[in-house]
Amino acid sequence: MPLVVVGSVALDRVETPTETRDDLLGGSGSYFAYAASYFTPVKLVSVVGEDWPEEYTRLLQSRNVDTAGLQLVPGAKTFRWSGKYLDDMNQRETLDVQLNAMTQFDPVLPEDYRRCKFLFLANDPPELQLKVLEQCPDTALAMADTMDLWINSQRAGLLELLTRIDGVLLNDSEAILLTGETNLVRAGQRVRELGPRFVVIKKGEHGAMFFSQHETYVLPAFPTARVVDPTGAGDSFAGGMMGYLAERDNCEPGTLKQALAYGTLAASFTVEDFSLDRLREIEREDIEQRMVEYKRMLSF
Amino acid sequence: MPLVVVGSVALDRVETPTETRDDLLGGSGSYFAYAASYFTPVKLVSVVGEDWPEEYTRLLQSRNVDTAGLQLVPGAKTFRWSGKYLDDMNQRETLDVQLNAMTQFDPVLPEDYRRCKFLFLANDPPELQLKVLEQCPDTALAMADTMDLWINSQRAGLLELLTRIDGVLLNDSEAILLTGETNLVRAGQRVRELGPRFVVIKKGEHGAMFFSQHETYVLPAFPTARVVDPTGAGDSFAGGMMGYLAERDNCEPGTLKQALAYGTLAASFTVEDFSLDRLREIEREDIEQRMVEYKRMLSF
Repeated sequence: MPLVVVGSVALDRVETPTETRDDLLGGSGSYFAYAASYFTPVKLVSVVGEDWPEEYTRLLQSRNVDTAGLQLVPGAKTFRWSGKYLDDMNQRETLDVQLNAMTQFDPVLPEDYRRCKFLFLANDPPELQLKVLEQCPDTALAMADTMDLWINSQRAGLLELLTRIDGVLLNDSEAILLTGETNLVRAGQRVRELGPRFVVIKKGEHGAMFFSQHETYVLPAFPTARVVDPTGAGDSFAGGMMGYLAERDNCEPGTLKQALAYGTLAASFTVEDFSLDRLREIEREDIEQRMVEYKRMLSF
Repeated sequence: MPLVVVGSVALDRVETPTETRDDLLGGSGSYFAYAASYFTPVKLVSVVGEDWPEEYTRLLQSRNVDTAGLQLVPGAKTFRWSGKYLDDMNQRETLDVQLNAMTQFDPVLPEDYRRCKFLFLANDPPELQLKVLEQCPDTALAMADTMDLWINSQRAGLLELLTRIDGVLLNDSEAILLTGETNLVRAGQRVRELGPRFVVIKKGEHGAMFFSQHETYVLPAFPTARVVDPTGAGDSFAGGMMGYLAERDNCEPGTLKQALAYGTLAASFTVEDFSLDRLREIEREDIEQRMVEYKRMLSF
């Protein structure tokens, strides 16, 4: 089943304790689409400026990502993000954000995108996410991400969105900010009471928690000794998760849990190098091999 | 198989965001012994002062904990610890420590304790842990805990200890402090290279990681919405883990992983109330029921 993602495409500058890289392919939409592409055809909706390297479009297309929804804004530059990881790699400072073309992002989906059953609304202002949702009346599964900025500044829009989507993904700190609950189990349950059928709380290196009416569970991250650049791990998680659900064309509880595991593994590859460099090296078979290890790890 | 634990017994004062409790039964030895007692007979070695409530000894004895090794120091007071949990319950401030009788803790084990196969050295100065180890020449499995204080102030003794024991438990921050590695997978591997056959890194609400020559894995904590007092969770974890190993009289890889799971569940009960209050309410059957839930959670 094809999967539509609406999110950012960016040129990133990333500083780690050992290395700095510039003009990296980044953005939530890119990471999501690339990770999801291991499982299902993906249709990307985003916006870039005139400095966008054509090779990045070709890279996405090489993995069966439809870029018909990638708009170019004449005279604008591409969204740029710059961040720095501290010594322990779990702490990040955002150094600079230049929204550039993103300020003119008003997604109008191509006709064939609008009939999608699987839709992911990556982190964008809730009002924009709602506008996209309205263009896709046939979704079987619509999921959204969000961030602290919208929880603080566009709470009403976010609360409206939560009543209209099937699932929401958010970080542990965002779940706490949204609900005022510091216990993550209670925070997850409270977010679910705001509307969505299920909630995924991402805990970075500590894995992810899932909440639905009848289920609460946590899956650990896949332990990796090689963490080069954690940028995009959360978006890759979402991409692996929804990619698998779209491939199976199924959102039953058992499939959702498998999907969370695939998201976990997609993220575990992403952090092993800058940008999409590690994902570019692997095939679906590598994900399946790691899945065998992951399942063995959780069996006793 | 009986299990010997050498550790502290304390009277705790605990402040949480909603309640303060005084003169609670605490200490690493108490939590460990009580949690382990669900699996195997336990022999406790510790020291108390004249203010020690006899009812606490009877409480331990009521669960098959042999207290012949509990020494009373005439004229001394019992070790007292006071701590405060901040709003998110994962952050703790130690408010006061009065070692009292612990300053005279020089464990001389009863003869029948010395033939033990299973020995746990709870957090104590490494030199004291080494002295105990020398009294028990027949151990099949000796495990130790430690803390930042000894890593900083008695590093040589701790490094000596690590070459003499089978397994070590430590917190994530302690593993980082000991090795200088901020990636926990590498930190765990580095600790293992210091001598022990296996290493367990405790991550609190995020679970525990295990490292041996051929295995690296992580098990998540059991998600609980009711975290009243996290004091003693790590010691209960160790108690559940070693209690199960002693019950099985076996330290093979598969048994070790099951033991980690039992430790995880023992800790999950402990945090649900102050002191040993929640553990006092349960039977082995409750642990087994939670094990069924925990295994289901990790199956997909």
